[in-house]
Amino acid sequence: MKKQDYLKEVVEQIEIKSFDSRPIIAAYRKMAFQARNLARATDIYNRMLQDQDCQIILTLAGSLFSAGLKNIVADMIDNNMIDVIVSTGAIIVDQDFLEALGFRHYLGTPFVNDAELRELMIDRIYDTYIDEEELRVCDLTVAEIAEKLEPRPYSSREFIYEMGKYLDEKGVKSAKSVIYSAFKKGVPIFVPAFSDCSAGFGLIHHQWHQKENYVSLDSARDFLELTQIKLACKETGILMIGGGVPKNFTQDVVVATDVLGEEKPMHKYAIQLTVADERDGALSGSTLKEASSWGKVDTSYEQMVFGEATVTMPLLVSAAYHQGRWKERQPANFQKIFFK
Amino acid sequence: MKKQDYLKEVVEQIEIKSFDSRPIIAAYRKMAFQARNLARATDIYNRMLQDQDCQIILTLAGSLFSAGLKNIVADMIDNNMIDVIVSTGAIIVDQDFLEALGFRHYLGTPFVNDAELRELMIDRIYDTYIDEEELRVCDLTVAEIAEKLEPRPYSSREFIYEMGKYLDEKGVKSAKSVIYSAFKKGVPIFVPAFSDCSAGFGLIHHQWHQKENYVSLDSARDFLELTQIKLACKETGILMIGGGVPKNFTQDVVVATDVLGEEKPMHKYAIQLTVADERDGALSGSTLKEASSWGKVDTSYEQMVFGEATVTMPLLVSAAYHQGRWKERQPANFQKIFFK
Amino acid sequence: MKKQDYLKEVVEQIEIKSFDSRPIIAAYRKMAFQARNLARATDIYNRMLQDQDCQIILTLAGSLFSAGLKNIVADMIDNNMIDVIVSTGAIIVDQDFLEALGFRHYLGTPFVNDAELRELMIDRIYDTYIDEEELRVCDLTVAEIAEKLEPRPYSSREFIYEMGKYLDEKGVKSAKSVIYSAFKKGVPIFVPAFSDCSAGFGLIHHQWHQKENYVSLDSARDFLELTQIKLACKETGILMIGGGVPKNFTQDVVVATDVLGEEKPMHKYAIQLTVADERDGALSGSTLKEASSWGKVDTSYEQMVFGEATVTMPLLVSAAYHQGRWKERQPANFQKIFFK
Amino acid sequence: MKKQDYLKEVVEQIEIKSFDSRPIIAAYRKMAFQARNLARATDIYNRMLQDQDCQIILTLAGSLFSAGLKNIVADMIDNNMIDVIVSTGAIIVDQDFLEALGFRHYLGTPFVNDAELRELMIDRIYDTYIDEEELRVCDLTVAEIAEKLEPRPYSSREFIYEMGKYLDEKGVKSAKSVIYSAFKKGVPIFVPAFSDCSAGFGLIHHQWHQKENYVSLDSARDFLELTQIKLACKETGILMIGGGVPKNFTQDVVVATDVLGEEKPMHKYAIQLTVADERDGALSGSTLKEASSWGKVDTSYEQMVFGEATVTMPLLVSAAYHQGRWKERQPANFQKIFFK
Repeated sequence: MKKQDYLKEVVEQIEIKSFDSRPIIAAYRKMAFQARNLARATDIYNRMLQDQDCQIILTLAGSLFSAGLKNIVADMIDNNMIDVIVSTGAIIVDQDFLEALGFRHYLGTPFVNDAELRELMIDRIYDTYIDEEELRVCDLTVAEIAEKLEPRPYSSREFIYEMGKYLDEKGVKSAKSVIYSAFKKGVPIFVPAFSDCSAGFGLIHHQWHQKENYVSLDSARDFLELTQIKLACKETGILMIGGGVPKNFTQDVVVATDVLGEEKPMHKYAIQLTVADERDGALSGSTLKEASSWGKVDTSYEQMVFGEATVTMPLLVSAAYHQGRWKERQPANFQKIFFK
Repeated sequence: MKKQDYLKEVVEQIEIKSFDSRPIIAAYRKMAFQARNLARATDIYNRMLQDQDCQIILTLAGSLFSAGLKNIVADMIDNNMIDVIVSTGAIIVDQDFLEALGFRHYLGTPFVNDAELRELMIDRIYDTYIDEEELRVCDLTVAEIAEKLEPRPYSSREFIYEMGKYLDEKGVKSAKSVIYSAFKKGVPIFVPAFSDCSAGFGLIHHQWHQKENYVSLDSARDFLELTQIKLACKETGILMIGGGVPKNFTQDVVVATDVLGEEKPMHKYAIQLTVADERDGALSGSTLKEASSWGKVDTSYEQMVFGEATVTMPLLVSAAYHQGRWKERQPANFQKIFFK
Repeated sequence: MKKQDYLKEVVEQIEIKSFDSRPIIAAYRKMAFQARNLARATDIYNRMLQDQDCQIILTLAGSLFSAGLKNIVADMIDNNMIDVIVSTGAIIVDQDFLEALGFRHYLGTPFVNDAELRELMIDRIYDTYIDEEELRVCDLTVAEIAEKLEPRPYSSREFIYEMGKYLDEKGVKSAKSVIYSAFKKGVPIFVPAFSDCSAGFGLIHHQWHQKENYVSLDSARDFLELTQIKLACKETGILMIGGGVPKNFTQDVVVATDVLGEEKPMHKYAIQLTVADERDGALSGSTLKEASSWGKVDTSYEQMVFGEATVTMPLLVSAAYHQGRWKERQPANFQKIFFK
Repeated sequence: MKKQDYLKEVVEQIEIKSFDSRPIIAAYRKMAFQARNLARATDIYNRMLQDQDCQIILTLAGSLFSAGLKNIVADMIDNNMIDVIVSTGAIIVDQDFLEALGFRHYLGTPFVNDAELRELMIDRIYDTYIDEEELRVCDLTVAEIAEKLEPRPYSSREFIYEMGKYLDEKGVKSAKSVIYSAFKKGVPIFVPAFSDCSAGFGLIHHQWHQKENYVSLDSARDFLELTQIKLACKETGILMIGGGVPKNFTQDVVVATDVLGEEKPMHKYAIQLTVADERDGALSGSTLKEASSWGKVDTSYEQMVFGEATVTMPLLVSAAYHQGRWKERQPANFQKIFFK
């Protein structure tokens, strides 16, 4: 088969406005197990949206946007349903930025000869494909952005803001873009392990050729900036899709305020959609009750939902969208904290 | 706390007619991972329903009906969406029959003192409760049914038919009942490990007090009868919720026809909704491709969906219900094979 | 490839005497997560073995014997380390009896063309193979045994005892056999879903050709007999490998004694090695604390270990074997209850 | 209860020299499922150690060192069994450095009141406890180290080297330390998300008080440096414990060499011990075959083992240690690349 035989059908982003999941969530509420957990998580999210003192942090881990969950997040930004994003690099760069540059993800299958894919420069993520040659364009676009910046340490938030500016100048070639929506709305995006993705390739290309006086990515500053946002909030709620570094990083800011000698409450609301479980002791599946022992998360309004995000996240967000409590919310525009 | 403080809010059965999941499933179809798998499973189920040569076997394992998935199955029977059921005993007896006798399941929580529940005779299934005293009534009703039967070996199908007759005579005290719908529609229900549930308690009560000339449950006859149904079908499709004995038993009938010297095709369609995975080599999570090596399942139309059934099953069945291909189907009434 | 190209290397049974796992278990005891859980489970098993009032029930689910865990169980019987077995049919018939007839399981791989295997009549269990033609011999041997029995309802325990007698007469063709060791030692083996395996094929072959006056398998009697054993014990401990029907069935006998109006304590000790988790509400992964709400299991000495049994079970049993507390135990010989 | 009632028994590190797991691994080799996978992984690790052209990268994710797996890694460094480490921050800073400062982890339980723990400043990781006050000392020691450094961007490798130097000067207060062994042996340790741990608290304390001219952590440089190491190797093998950023980061360096215009082979050997599975499409559970489509990992010698690391890692490493192929290996001392 040729490359174009594999890269035929594209992944289409699901749209939360295209269906109203409230009747399903209402029925789940009186059931058991994960259906009820998902309904309870939705109720907590609605409560966050209604709480005028609460700012909402969305954390993202897993191959979410290549799987069709990108436009949901763009809509959440556009409709003031979240105020900050903490993500893995792949989601923001390899997936969102890649599509904003005009490229796509493709429907594939796990039952395929990976050696043949490699020959054709097709990368596989479970049952989807990416064109490695397009991904290289994405890498180099990051390098190109770095070239034009003043050589100094940047937080990932700053750098991603520059990526938004780039899209603003060059034009966004996908229907929606999380980076671009965030740029417009003043929603900071943090990627604490920013070099662990396509951006990393672009940045080492930059540093390798620049040798000296280059752009660097200061992950400590990421942490400081997210802590500054926490300091600016009366209350916070966290909606976590998957675990990993974004989950840990975001929970840690509560302790960080304490280390800086400031007094701030724990995250008042916390939701996690995940397939991980707690029995290996790893952070990704650790319960939110465990997090409360660390003083990170309050346990009055916390809910873990065991399920894969492509199925559960659209149901949760569509219900909250149609419930409409976001209509009373104002954009927090936390980016303005950093522009003085 | 007192018993009634725990047993306050009842589990409400989800109704597939109360929402139309087709727009969600349509969006899932172009996504990735389990969302796409769930859409593909729905497509295969629709294909089964449309195939006039195909009879459909539903297998059930896990605490499904106490979790709110009972009425879905009753509706599937009433609307000719399935022709045979193979289940664990708990689902059919402790959960369906219990509710048909007028009792209920209750919303609970896993974060509770189990010793206190035991004191109060409350049984916990993860986040739901059952009144053990009501369950004992269920046990003894089974014993009462056994008392009135001619003492000989019965298949579980025969015995469950008698339970349906009992409900027909005494009246069904729940809005819907799978045993009763199946009784009315001639849908055989098999429970290959019939003593492994509330019915077991009733039957040993019967045998213990009867000493001789008692009713027995012939599990070999279950297998023979299900094989006879397979022999009566041109094609078969299986929709499996969970794994366990019902999955294995139902897959095995293909080989059984061969052992009896009859030539019958593999199950043409196969779907499984499960949280188990294949890496421990156990049957519950074994892939349908693996089953094809045994000559049990054809691989053209098979799909496993990784997800918990309270979330996934309502989406799948609601979409198929509203698609309406069942409208052209006739009831198979396989019970009539056994009444000559 | 030809059939013999696939069926070349045989699965070798692991021998608990070939290594002493005590130093590993001792180190695990001061660690965390599943290592510590496995050490604690071993300690509880040692405690069971030391408790002269306690009889031990082993439950088995999953493809354990084809994976190399058969001889461990045979050694446990031979050395008075267990008193009763409750199992799935596949383990006892397709795997133990098959090998006792002189056949073997073969090393394979999950990365194989299942259609080709089907053509060659090779059955796959994850990464192992069985020769379907040999399995058919196993099926028909069960039929042959049934032919010679007086036509009446049998418990699975009775029937498996007859299989042991068959092996005693014809000779055991494997180094060890659980059925045969149990036959010799008076250890009852229950298979509550006895028709759900190779035995089922043999039995329907028997019933199909016999038409009337045939052997039937009374699953209610299985439950009654196991309850009688519980009644004969002062205390009981359960060691569960996997979940499924054997787990549920064995836990249920405590309630069964109560239904028969007898007063018996809960299982005093309980261990489960499993990969299932509790979040889907199904029995296989339900915690032993949950079981205590049902009055089935005491919580003072209970431990779940999350891990696949081929790795964990040899470590646990080897440590207990070398600890040697079984040396003071007498065989319970529960078979004698049923021969009067 | 008081704080000292919770913090009584300490986690003891397991020692690979205290037992020889080779007989167990040998038996696993002829079994099935994860036992055989673990044996095959051990064989591949032995092959890596024997391959004189191959340098070995160890990746670490999960709460491994607090669970007792720290000394294993220290021994691997001391005996030239690994050449590079890529880890999460918690393992290296909160766990290794914390113990090197004289603090310990404590045996605990997940069945505890987390609110009470919070009151007492005890942090829980599943079934272990940490004294939050001791962790704060760890945070501030990182700040102290940062204070004394020339203010400029550092790679995490550089910073961790400084932590090793600090220990060299002040004395190591634990029996073994991975940071210190690595310092002595010239083994680079990379933590690509370095601010996502106790070090993050120290660094924001530093940056917050310093305002300008502070130390920053350049995650891009981490990636560049690891790529430089890859460029210096003829062949590479990776031993991955858990997934997360360390897995992705380490696999990515192969592609990185290509982006820099250099030609380097894929990782020739790859092992992962993990509980994650592939069905959610996330990187942590993605198969090594999938990685080969990206050109990251060769598939001739790759093995995933499904199991929790506290159980599986000691078995694997003890067998390789006692096999002794490391005796012919020379230390790679990759730190010297960066000191010119």
